Amino acid sequence: MTPTAKQRLRLWVHENYKEILQVGFRVERTLFSGESEFQRIDIVEADGFGRMLFNDGAVMLSERDEFVYHEMISHVPLFVAPHPRRVLVIGGGDGGTVREVLRHPSVEYCRLVEIDPLVLEGCRKHIPKTAASLDDPRVEVRVEDGVKHVAETSDRFDVVLVDSSDPIGPAAPLFGPAFYADVRRVLADDGIVVSQAESAFYEIETQRGLLAILGRCFPRVHLYNYSNLTYPGGLWSFSFASKGDRCPIADLDTRRLAACGIDFRYYGERQHRAAFVLPAFQERALAGQLTPHKSRG
Amino acid sequence: MTPTAKQRLRLWVHENYKEILQVGFRVERTLFSGESEFQRIDIVEADGFGRMLFNDGAVMLSERDEFVYHEMISHVPLFVAPHPRRVLVIGGGDGGTVREVLRHPSVEYCRLVEIDPLVLEGCRKHIPKTAASLDDPRVEVRVEDGVKHVAETSDRFDVVLVDSSDPIGPAAPLFGPAFYADVRRVLADDGIVVSQAESAFYEIETQRGLLAILGRCFPRVHLYNYSNLTYPGGLWSFSFASKGDRCPIADLDTRRLAACGIDFRYYGERQHRAAFVLPAFQERALAGQLTPHKSRG
Repeated sequence: MTPTAKQRLRLWVHENYKEILQVGFRVERTLFSGESEFQRIDIVEADGFGRMLFNDGAVMLSERDEFVYHEMISHVPLFVAPHPRRVLVIGGGDGGTVREVLRHPSVEYCRLVEIDPLVLEGCRKHIPKTAASLDDPRVEVRVEDGVKHVAETSDRFDVVLVDSSDPIGPAAPLFGPAFYADVRRVLADDGIVVSQAESAFYEIETQRGLLAILGRCFPRVHLYNYSNLTYPGGLWSFSFASKGDRCPIADLDTRRLAACGIDFRYYGERQHRAAFVLPAFQERALAGQLTPHKSRG
Repeated sequence: MTPTAKQRLRLWVHENYKEILQVGFRVERTLFSGESEFQRIDIVEADGFGRMLFNDGAVMLSERDEFVYHEMISHVPLFVAPHPRRVLVIGGGDGGTVREVLRHPSVEYCRLVEIDPLVLEGCRKHIPKTAASLDDPRVEVRVEDGVKHVAETSDRFDVVLVDSSDPIGPAAPLFGPAFYADVRRVLADDGIVVSQAESAFYEIETQRGLLAILGRCFPRVHLYNYSNLTYPGGLWSFSFASKGDRCPIADLDTRRLAACGIDFRYYGERQHRAAFVLPAFQERALAGQLTPHKSRG
């Protein structure tokens, strides 16, 4: 033990995952804690990870690695959609997804629908790195139930991003069939919806269920992976579905991507293509549910 | 609390990583514990992960996800080497790497050089899933210091696999320049060496150091990634260096791979290629140290 270790308590917070795994972070101090009608929200400063957001004890983001999730949920569909002007984000009250969406100059309007005002309050106060984007004039924030919102709105969007937590608690209906029928309705004819689709290793049944629902609403359904630091198991997935026939590989707008000038930290053209190559076990488990890619040319 | 939880103690073991992260597994029972002159070895039965091997408290493998590491360390070089007959494994006393090497019918001889007899003893008793391979007649096990072994042997190998633990403790010299000069010597003219190269997120400096050493010994140096469940941060890397000019993309033997009949759980042709696409931050950090791929055809 070093002298420093003797002088100071070491506080750890552990996310418990499926009763078999714990992922723990060393907490310097707690910045924000509260309970809304939906969930408990905590924001802490964690040694080596910066500020971290927890919903009901599950890690939502850390400042250290949030760029992975936020680049991958947004740039993949936005460089496949032909000319994305209007984007709808369901959930994602931390603002990280909106921040990446706004890096696309074609985007004129981005609507964020977050069910829980406490997420917005906590992140606006303590995680400006992601939440500052919510003050951009192109952004409209609505504190509403996303499921109800897509059921009732008559507005249309080029891209919908479902930036949800796990399919328990307030996010559960975001994994259901009624929600995706409505998402289809609010999408433009060649629109794309990308959704947080859980862990490749631990949640293959959830992935099958989500793809089955998407397959009933959309002619083209894919899944892609990304590696982040703070989610259990590291390798997580997003689903990709297009209402028209935009293929994420053949219809990637490589010219726009090459000219965009965005200094990506995770994403890029090769990274985009590689993300759709799934480990053999995952590919096999989801066989029959994924649309083959179009051949190029 | 459920009634079951009341009846039973819950035991957890946590790997401490860099004082900022803990990864914990629920232990059903301890199967093996001992201390050698090199390190402490523990084998436990963990809920949801099967049997797990720890060296000095760091996870080496779990039965649940060991297939990822072992397929990726072995098949990538073995499908690029033109006709691999003789393979040298340094470390890897659990036997998982040897098991995958033996799935290649061209391999006539595989030598495992493990420094610590306690690893061999523990795995042979308690992890037959990987260690059973060590009894194959094509395998010779030597209990020796791998660094000394490559310095002294006059034998030659088509592929060398450095299946080491972290660059602290007994594995530290396996990340050094003297070792790789000797590896170069024992390799056939078109031979390939692949080495465990630590975490993409946490150990970029270690990766730079290793690639710099490899770059002084080999004309062609690459890095590729894989995602496993039980190593901190999920995304880890292997280095790839060839003494001749075998490129892991252009010289992949797709015909042999397509005909091999191995039921991979992680690996495959597309997975092979995708593994060499690194996240943008890693690619940038290692720029100048990685050899460009040959153009095909």
